[in-house]
Amino acid sequence: MAPRRRIGEFELIARYFAPLARDFPGAGGLKSDNAVFSADPRRDLVVKTDMVVSGVHFLPDERPQTIAAKALRVCLSDLAAGGATPHAYQLALALPSDWKESWIAAFARGLAVDQRRYGVSLSGGDTVVTPGPLSVSITAFGKVARGRAMRRDRARAGDELWVTGTIGDGALGLLAARGRLKGITPRQGAMLEGRYRLPQPRCALGVRLPGIATASADVSDGLLADAGHVADASGLAVVVEREAIPLSAAARTALTVESKLWAAVLGGGDDYELVLAVPRRKRAALRAAADASGIDVTRIGHFTHGAGVQLMIDGRAAPLPRKGYVHF
Amino acid sequence: MAPRRRIGEFELIARYFAPLARDFPGAGGLKSDNAVFSADPRRDLVVKTDMVVSGVHFLPDERPQTIAAKALRVCLSDLAAGGATPHAYQLALALPSDWKESWIAAFARGLAVDQRRYGVSLSGGDTVVTPGPLSVSITAFGKVARGRAMRRDRARAGDELWVTGTIGDGALGLLAARGRLKGITPRQGAMLEGRYRLPQPRCALGVRLPGIATASADVSDGLLADAGHVADASGLAVVVEREAIPLSAAARTALTVESKLWAAVLGGGDDYELVLAVPRRKRAALRAAADASGIDVTRIGHFTHGAGVQLMIDGRAAPLPRKGYVHF
Repeated sequence: MAPRRRIGEFELIARYFAPLARDFPGAGGLKSDNAVFSADPRRDLVVKTDMVVSGVHFLPDERPQTIAAKALRVCLSDLAAGGATPHAYQLALALPSDWKESWIAAFARGLAVDQRRYGVSLSGGDTVVTPGPLSVSITAFGKVARGRAMRRDRARAGDELWVTGTIGDGALGLLAARGRLKGITPRQGAMLEGRYRLPQPRCALGVRLPGIATASADVSDGLLADAGHVADASGLAVVVEREAIPLSAAARTALTVESKLWAAVLGGGDDYELVLAVPRRKRAALRAAADASGIDVTRIGHFTHGAGVQLMIDGRAAPLPRKGYVHF
Repeated sequence: MAPRRRIGEFELIARYFAPLARDFPGAGGLKSDNAVFSADPRRDLVVKTDMVVSGVHFLPDERPQTIAAKALRVCLSDLAAGGATPHAYQLALALPSDWKESWIAAFARGLAVDQRRYGVSLSGGDTVVTPGPLSVSITAFGKVARGRAMRRDRARAGDELWVTGTIGDGALGLLAARGRLKGITPRQGAMLEGRYRLPQPRCALGVRLPGIATASADVSDGLLADAGHVADASGLAVVVEREAIPLSAAARTALTVESKLWAAVLGGGDDYELVLAVPRRKRAALRAAADASGIDVTRIGHFTHGAGVQLMIDGRAAPLPRKGYVHF
């Protein structure tokens, strides 16, 4: 990537867009991924918008079914972080001028499969033709008991930091897809690549977490960045113990061969796991929720007074690695 | 435009996307512009998504404030057609890689002005960088009394066809901006161009129409097309009397000089007026609502049994003009 000469996405949002959301309490000052609307007397509607662009957020040769699934799932991942049950989505599709009907048919099939998988329905949208690359913007809606949507900004000092699944597979999968990963088997490469191409949003666990986690986010920007977003929004610091981070066997192999890949594991995005702030007394409840949903959870650190992200390696404070892949 | 070799937007939606919305009653089979969610015991949330792309839906040299306003207003126009009061919106912004902070600042100012004008707030969104042209996708939310959102598919045989404001200014404005309009004064050219560049959604009237209009749509695809969409969705035919169509003085002048511009007036889009199906007994209520909102309404035809659009010129059935500008 070229050096960053300009303000980044977060500064841009804080400076220009957050003021536009000041009077809408459900926007949370744009510091949470999700917006919250009232849905009915008992439930809130959690709303999340994401946009993915060919060649930026997915590989230009990606299959249409997979593009459809990824575009939808990156939103469902945020709904999972909000504790919401997927309900419906709006689809804005910008097609390149040489679009083919067979492509659309496959794209729609991909959506249909995920609609059944996640219990969600298309509710509306817009389709246009663009001289640029294919892009897909989805606004997804989920439901959660009134006032129970999880946010980024409610972690408390002393809360433990937990993550779901394994971390780093998304960023390593992108490297694998580009043939840049050494020492792994073809099967491991395919697994990592699959993790990059097709996120597995943690909806089954997310819906069980209101009342257990005090704050949450999904890992889309990178573990340290997203844990840091929760800490920042909550006015706290977060400590991450590197050796506690759950890794897939493939990631472990890749890191053994090339330890500088830790930068990608800690700083790359696209894992679509959840980072959670959980009070110690809720440990048993968290484990029970994890068991019920069949999703692993691992404690990897804690929140404390202060600011920023502190990485610990074997009990010693370590410098943060340079951030990995930057979409923006 | 090149000849259309492929299926059009409406066929594409009907064939591939409508099946994905079959189980979501609020989607109306994707035959209405808006989706409807429940908001609270007394109100529904009307939801509309639109995407605009530089060089396709607005001129590449357009000012950022105007792009912001247009992107928001094309959605608010649909909320007006749904009878909903604007509430909030999600913003997905794809910036070209050479974006400048000053551009963003001006874009945000344009949104801020319209937020005050229409009483709406940013609720969330996403910002990405694209190798393609600037594009903006907005999902807007409006509120309406429960069960009262206006739709396209409720017109009844015998209902009168009404429109707001004047028709054709949007399409003629695009021609004016390109220097292709003859015989008009510079002032008239500027007025028409302004109508193209910056829609005036009929929110003030729209919110008064539930209970008066049986069906509605906004004029985004063109008068005949949009009146036809209401007729199709309602299982009816619609008759349009050309001489009854309200025209601005500028449009009247342009048509006197060049009568083939009727094709643009009838078939071009971008007017963002409302087409309404109104029972005869509701005429007085419609006029009172129009007076209260300061927006003119004109009766230009009626709905009847059958199918399709019938254009009448001086009392005689006339062939439909070729469709004007096609975005898709």
